[in-house]
Amino acid sequence: MTDATLIVAMETHDVRFPTSRYLDGSDAMNPDPDYSAAYVVLRCAGGAEGHGFAFTIGRGNDVQTAAIRTLERFVVGRRPDDLGALYKEMAHDSQLRWLGPEKGVMHMAISAVVNALWDLKAKLEGKPLWRLLGEMEPEEIVSLVDFRYLSDALTPGEALDILRRAEPGRAERIARLTADGYPAYTTSPGWLGYDDDKLRRLCKEAIDDGFTQIKLKVGADLEDDRRRLRIAREVCGPGFRIAIDANQRWDVGSAISWVNALREFDPYWVEEPTSPDDVLGHATIARALAPIKVATGEHVQNRVVFKQMLQAGSLSVVQLDAARVGGVNENIAILLLAAKFGVPVCPHAGGVGLCELVQHLAMFDYVAVSGSTDDRIIEYVGHLHEHFVDPVVIRNGHYQAPAAPGFSAALLPEALAEYAFPGGPAWNGDGSTT
Amino acid sequence: MTDATLIVAMETHDVRFPTSRYLDGSDAMNPDPDYSAAYVVLRCAGGAEGHGFAFTIGRGNDVQTAAIRTLERFVVGRRPDDLGALYKEMAHDSQLRWLGPEKGVMHMAISAVVNALWDLKAKLEGKPLWRLLGEMEPEEIVSLVDFRYLSDALTPGEALDILRRAEPGRAERIARLTADGYPAYTTSPGWLGYDDDKLRRLCKEAIDDGFTQIKLKVGADLEDDRRRLRIAREVCGPGFRIAIDANQRWDVGSAISWVNALREFDPYWVEEPTSPDDVLGHATIARALAPIKVATGEHVQNRVVFKQMLQAGSLSVVQLDAARVGGVNENIAILLLAAKFGVPVCPHAGGVGLCELVQHLAMFDYVAVSGSTDDRIIEYVGHLHEHFVDPVVIRNGHYQAPAAPGFSAALLPEALAEYAFPGGPAWNGDGSTT
Repeated sequence: MTDATLIVAMETHDVRFPTSRYLDGSDAMNPDPDYSAAYVVLRCAGGAEGHGFAFTIGRGNDVQTAAIRTLERFVVGRRPDDLGALYKEMAHDSQLRWLGPEKGVMHMAISAVVNALWDLKAKLEGKPLWRLLGEMEPEEIVSLVDFRYLSDALTPGEALDILRRAEPGRAERIARLTADGYPAYTTSPGWLGYDDDKLRRLCKEAIDDGFTQIKLKVGADLEDDRRRLRIAREVCGPGFRIAIDANQRWDVGSAISWVNALREFDPYWVEEPTSPDDVLGHATIARALAPIKVATGEHVQNRVVFKQMLQAGSLSVVQLDAARVGGVNENIAILLLAAKFGVPVCPHAGGVGLCELVQHLAMFDYVAVSGSTDDRIIEYVGHLHEHFVDPVVIRNGHYQAPAAPGFSAALLPEALAEYAFPGGPAWNGDGSTT
Repeated sequence: MTDATLIVAMETHDVRFPTSRYLDGSDAMNPDPDYSAAYVVLRCAGGAEGHGFAFTIGRGNDVQTAAIRTLERFVVGRRPDDLGALYKEMAHDSQLRWLGPEKGVMHMAISAVVNALWDLKAKLEGKPLWRLLGEMEPEEIVSLVDFRYLSDALTPGEALDILRRAEPGRAERIARLTADGYPAYTTSPGWLGYDDDKLRRLCKEAIDDGFTQIKLKVGADLEDDRRRLRIAREVCGPGFRIAIDANQRWDVGSAISWVNALREFDPYWVEEPTSPDDVLGHATIARALAPIKVATGEHVQNRVVFKQMLQAGSLSVVQLDAARVGGVNENIAILLLAAKFGVPVCPHAGGVGLCELVQHLAMFDYVAVSGSTDDRIIEYVGHLHEHFVDPVVIRNGHYQAPAAPGFSAALLPEALAEYAFPGGPAWNGDGSTT
């Protein structure tokens, strides 16, 4: 790469959207989130930019932004060429690693920077990220993965075999994605803060819009859940997939009894029934609730926990998150683990820009890893897309394959200004909303 | 409590000791730590102070300090009375919880503040913390614990039973502690950066000082490990307990083969053989290496992971850390879990002030929870104690029971000034060390 690709500056922004005013995003554990992004821009000498972010729900977004700043030393003065090595350098930094290791604020910071590097690299190569990754040689993809702590479940050789098996048909799958897109489900009807009429209306709209699955938040009150599921089932009809999401509300025993009390409404999966750290608890729940599937991942901290969940049979659906684990690189590890264990990946989305990011990962999975969209579907939530330079496009219940170069990660400059916290106009210049 | 106990201010300090100059604390994963504290002081209207900190090893200590600042809203204007409720309020804050949940930077921040509240409360009551806790009613102790995600392994009723069983004999155990102290082992001989002569000399000193166990760092180079263990075994003689510590260096398979290659030196336990997140991996290692014990905990993020490690038989030694999980409250949960599963607790110490803190937790365990010191021993590392107001006192290989009110958490004001980062004299006022 030329001098023009030298990264000369890192810029960060604390961006918060006052979503708590409308109860968008309200669930049993998160009653009043202000969807936020700890946002990073990498600037190259030649003018190219890479954008990335960690998603948070308000308070603490300043801490998350400060964590991103500690990574400046790894990227300024570098080029986005060997992103396998650069990712490992950040994840293995001995002093910063103490703050995790590979979990929480520090790991999400790595995610933001790694994703910004990939946004930059894809822009420099003039391709959308899903296609850049989907056209790489299997050996190059394997070199992006940190196999530390994975070798009892997945070796580099096994990863290479998985990728080589998927090589035939890549071109055909790229063509199919470009024509039809990738299936989506919608969570928009299901927030706890919505009343029954709004729920009914949004269920109807979801069907009309071509979605074949919806998701409802549950876990605050059992009778409410039964009433809302009954409404959703009435509107959607039998056989339509309705997932439920408890956002970690329950202990192991209460997860089992609560979901059993909802069984008559035929939930397709139960998401985040308990602590995302509880591998064994999820396995117990999965055994007790089968054939209802157990899904989790948006708060699963890293590949080591996903590895165990797959080893223990804790889940039937891997819900990777684009910005919780160590970015694109660790998500490739997770896609490979899921492929090894034959478990479908249905990414978590919503938040700020998570839809924009995960579509690339799911499409890469289809093109080059699992080679399938069977039982695979990307979450869709209709919030905040208007603030992005390259917002997702949903047509007939499908994410349309992004064509613009990059990772679709960039917020519009006017959004960065309007929602800057606490100084932006949306916060009255002082962090207040009223 | 009176108006004098109202908390009116929170103050934070980024304190770093340039320990990397001397290779103190060097191990297979952490070659050059600068032992640091993200330090917090709570000030009461009446002048009383509570001190607490998160321990880090250098870079990122500013992020850790910023995370502590987000908790100001929970403590200023409050009194240190119901610390069960106050802890849960911080740990359950829905927006901040997103940054964990209950792990990494945000959880360590909660730990620092919770521990400062306990330091304050113990000072106000005029007792060392171990004694304040050790004299509480079992019901009050149970009220301090967050049982969320624990009920499949430990219920409040079971916790109460454990504490009630230990009630007889509390006074006798307090008397014994006051007379004899609590057994310690030393890690001082075993840092990887020390040469063979220093290792030999420090092993000899450890025995002379009355310690009955030492610990050596391993995992960087197998032949080095064999040479160093041979030296230590020669000096200490057969039967003397020599633990080894890999600081997360290995995958599951390499942990087993590496430790098998050290088996002839009769290691007592192997500590942190792999990722602290790998419950199932530790269980596999424990089965393969028995009767060599597996120990871990200094990086175990919370009670949910400890719960699983106990459920899965992943460890034979629980090494709780005073400032990694949610402070005193979550450590009480961990002590109760360990007692339920009959596994001894041998706290992790060293760092900055961890010896000062964990002695209180181990002594409380002895007085009111497990009621035993069998196979229980506190780590001791001889660094940085001179900077504390109430430093630990080791006599004949035993921690002497602290008598001063509080949690022994306070650094001397001159240490806060000298090692302030980056402005303090130890950092030349600009963060440099040369």
